[in-house]
Amino acid sequence: MKKLKLLIVLIVVATISFSCKSDKKSEVEKDKEPVMAANDISLTDVEMKNGSEIYFDKCAGCHGSSRKGATGPSLLPDGDGKYAATKVLGAAGLRAFIENGTPGGMPEWKGIMTEEEIELMTRFLQAEPPVIPPYGIDEINSSWNLIIPVADRPTKPQHNRNINNYFGVIMRDAGKVAVIDGDTKEKLVVLKTGFAVHILRTSASGRYIYSVGRDGRITMIDTYTKTPTIVAEVKAGFDARSVEVSKFKGYEDKYLVFGGYSPSHIAILDAQTLEPLSVTETKGNACDGDKEFIEEARVAAIVASHTDPVWICNVKETGMVWIVDYTDPRNPGMTQIPTARFLHDGGFDSTGHYFLVAANASNKIVVIDVPNKKLVKIIETGIKPHPGRGTNIKNDLGNLWVTSHLGENKLSFIKTNPGENQWTVVKEIKASGNGGGALFVKSHPKSKHLWVDRTLNPDPVLNSAVDVFDIKTLELKKTLSAPEGVDGRAVHFEYNKAGNEVWVSYFMGEKSAIVIYNDKTLEVKQIIQGDWVENPTGKFNVYNTTHDVY
Amino acid sequence: MKKLKLLIVLIVVATISFSCKSDKKSEVEKDKEPVMAANDISLTDVEMKNGSEIYFDKCAGCHGSSRKGATGPSLLPDGDGKYAATKVLGAAGLRAFIENGTPGGMPEWKGIMTEEEIELMTRFLQAEPPVIPPYGIDEINSSWNLIIPVADRPTKPQHNRNINNYFGVIMRDAGKVAVIDGDTKEKLVVLKTGFAVHILRTSASGRYIYSVGRDGRITMIDTYTKTPTIVAEVKAGFDARSVEVSKFKGYEDKYLVFGGYSPSHIAILDAQTLEPLSVTETKGNACDGDKEFIEEARVAAIVASHTDPVWICNVKETGMVWIVDYTDPRNPGMTQIPTARFLHDGGFDSTGHYFLVAANASNKIVVIDVPNKKLVKIIETGIKPHPGRGTNIKNDLGNLWVTSHLGENKLSFIKTNPGENQWTVVKEIKASGNGGGALFVKSHPKSKHLWVDRTLNPDPVLNSAVDVFDIKTLELKKTLSAPEGVDGRAVHFEYNKAGNEVWVSYFMGEKSAIVIYNDKTLEVKQIIQGDWVENPTGKFNVYNTTHDVY
Repeated sequence: MKKLKLLIVLIVVATISFSCKSDKKSEVEKDKEPVMAANDISLTDVEMKNGSEIYFDKCAGCHGSSRKGATGPSLLPDGDGKYAATKVLGAAGLRAFIENGTPGGMPEWKGIMTEEEIELMTRFLQAEPPVIPPYGIDEINSSWNLIIPVADRPTKPQHNRNINNYFGVIMRDAGKVAVIDGDTKEKLVVLKTGFAVHILRTSASGRYIYSVGRDGRITMIDTYTKTPTIVAEVKAGFDARSVEVSKFKGYEDKYLVFGGYSPSHIAILDAQTLEPLSVTETKGNACDGDKEFIEEARVAAIVASHTDPVWICNVKETGMVWIVDYTDPRNPGMTQIPTARFLHDGGFDSTGHYFLVAANASNKIVVIDVPNKKLVKIIETGIKPHPGRGTNIKNDLGNLWVTSHLGENKLSFIKTNPGENQWTVVKEIKASGNGGGALFVKSHPKSKHLWVDRTLNPDPVLNSAVDVFDIKTLELKKTLSAPEGVDGRAVHFEYNKAGNEVWVSYFMGEKSAIVIYNDKTLEVKQIIQGDWVENPTGKFNVYNTTHDVY
Repeated sequence: MKKLKLLIVLIVVATISFSCKSDKKSEVEKDKEPVMAANDISLTDVEMKNGSEIYFDKCAGCHGSSRKGATGPSLLPDGDGKYAATKVLGAAGLRAFIENGTPGGMPEWKGIMTEEEIELMTRFLQAEPPVIPPYGIDEINSSWNLIIPVADRPTKPQHNRNINNYFGVIMRDAGKVAVIDGDTKEKLVVLKTGFAVHILRTSASGRYIYSVGRDGRITMIDTYTKTPTIVAEVKAGFDARSVEVSKFKGYEDKYLVFGGYSPSHIAILDAQTLEPLSVTETKGNACDGDKEFIEEARVAAIVASHTDPVWICNVKETGMVWIVDYTDPRNPGMTQIPTARFLHDGGFDSTGHYFLVAANASNKIVVIDVPNKKLVKIIETGIKPHPGRGTNIKNDLGNLWVTSHLGENKLSFIKTNPGENQWTVVKEIKASGNGGGALFVKSHPKSKHLWVDRTLNPDPVLNSAVDVFDIKTLELKKTLSAPEGVDGRAVHFEYNKAGNEVWVSYFMGEKSAIVIYNDKTLEVKQIIQGDWVENPTGKFNVYNTTHDVY
């Protein structure tokens, strides 16, 4: 924030100085000048559409769909009293931010966006934000496409493969999902799914794989057919990050929940067909301070309880954890637990009884007792914790749930079993090198290792490598650099069903790949590459995803 | 609704016929005429202010603070697609409704409002509704008046009276509350409280009496002083119906909750001082259908659990029962249970474990399991159930919770104890005469009688009398007409602490009174009258209110 304020001051000073030199107008007129000039900004309809697309893809995640700010500052033409008016920042100021990023976590877009895109955004951000049209159950229903009805699907697998060891692999920027047979490492299919796919989830039986794109599109893949097949699609919002299935006994493969960024809502759908059943808006009172009513209250991570017929939905801007009861999916009740802002991502402890979630902008991990629908504790850990779902290990310190941090080089270990120091950070360690940027950690009940990536670290040596720690000693065992013939940034881990292989993605390079390590020897077992491997990111093993093994 | 539609059709037809006769303008212009004419409506600032006051007092309760409709239709100049535009109804149409009422439950205002008031309202309702200004914790705090700080209050009663048998008596239209010693029947004090006081509640220790007015003003009365004294005041909203205290062990006399109609919010206050601690807006998704997001979601009845640190708050327009956890009063969590619209008033069963509430516009009683925060059942009973808090009796049919109905002559008995027919209407009976209009029922654990009023029945013979039933046989035992020297409508019952007296109010007559009956003999024991007895309505015995004895 200091940098932003400084920049605003510099720009304003520069503009005023310039005006003083250039003419003799009155003081009042001079002060108005930058805004007057900015009023000339105009965009064609095509530019507005393209600007919106770029904005929703790359900016809305932090700055909000309506540009009112979220984890990042607002981007409004006339400011909001807290953050500078984009018309005052002007094209030069906006360009400085877009090209260089900020230490607060904004990426450097130069080299990722084209010059034309950057130029467009310096104008788009000075214009009034386009109005977000309503998108409720009728619009969802209109978008619904049941490609293969349930009656026309096979009743048992049409192949002898082991579905439980299938991997769904996201190729985010290509908007595709690959399904790979984890036993044979064969690519079974590459399917076009939503734009910028965010995550995959598997149905409780393991049969279906669901993807959700940042464009709000849900794609449902049936693994019973010889080649995995898309059987239904629906667009449940404009912008989204999460989808989850009903996992409680008696509700297997029954319902799906969608968490919308824009509109901010929870949609419940039939998990067999993707027919929408209900939409619940998530706007509401914030968890703290003056309990401000927040209109854009986006749904971050969602997980499904195995102990109750509920989903745990994390509402980012309000800091409210919603425990949503899906026994009546057309009319869901919920418990709202005030915690901390801004809720992001999280997962279960080893018992499945407790859910731990990062409030990343407030540097905290929140612990929820799921069956009792209660807040257990809010724990300070470090700068911008980013656990993904976190991972669970066990050593002399106890049962530990682990999170990495984006903002600093720190892995925090929280004791989850009862007794002294339960729900306390009992250990902190560093990964190799300096700086944060770790996105994911991973272990497995059968493994002796803890894997850590450094995807967003600016140092290419660090962001292309992964660290492996011994879970007993928590000492660094090995740093694995990208194997020969592979480059880019290492991101995200997934174990196979047996828990003896670790799959790592390499993306944002010339030679992207999925690298499979032997978890025991830490040797490369196989490298999956090919034209179809386009910047892979998240990987989801069917068995581990269904059973929340992490 | 049929009557309303018919009237609209008649008015429109009449207007068009009239236009056809009067000139030769084109069809298009003719159709526009009534609206064009209505555009001439203008009100002075004083008329707007007076109209708003009348509206908030007499109309907002059913038609909504922003005139968008609630239990009654919307009253908007240009309509809302469902209900007619007030500009189309015009002054004559509006006057017809205001003067005559409707069978759907709108009262006949002729004789209650003056001619000048009616004329003003026929114009006020055709103008744009005044904007409701924001009213949050800062505004509540500004209105807060701590008259006697806690340190300056006595630590024990300054008299030898029995506070547990005090009665707080509401004189709604006078905006006053009388405190009467139930042992001696002496009036101890008459205090100016909020405008149109709605209910009283007593703190868990019984020491404090809190009143809430329809103007949102909370007044706190200390009974320890020789004469009960106002020690704090605060205005927690523009329009309100409910207030309740924290009753769970360990939280006695700690917190107060306020339920706002306008703004639609729950405010939590310090029960010792009335300092506001937090405000939570109650707008949200409706419980049914397309789960429409409702901005004006008013808080109807609130009750305090004795088994958990929670309040049960009934959100009228959404049909959501909120179980609000007050353990962190600055940051309350809640469970929202979808039930039925529109939630109104209710009370506990005899165990205090279950809460029963009327969804009056959908003719249902909703049963909530409070400790388990679950919907138990939704029961169809009759037209517009109006239980107040209901009352509990016991006979061969089981433990029965009783509700009266506004819309028909029916008392419904719901079995609350486990076994066959639990949560079923096991008996229905009629009060004397015909028609509905019963507002309240009452019994007491030590009584053999069930008392019923007929306050809103149009027949003056019925609305001035009360029926007493035998709780064993459910046969009518006696109809008690107004005693000599007393007139008006009979309304609301309260038992004394011992459970052997019943207090009945007589209001809206020339000779209003509180009539005290011997509950055993059904003879008049005492009549409380005097200049200070101005249209008494609700009466709250300290012990019974504190312990939810009804």
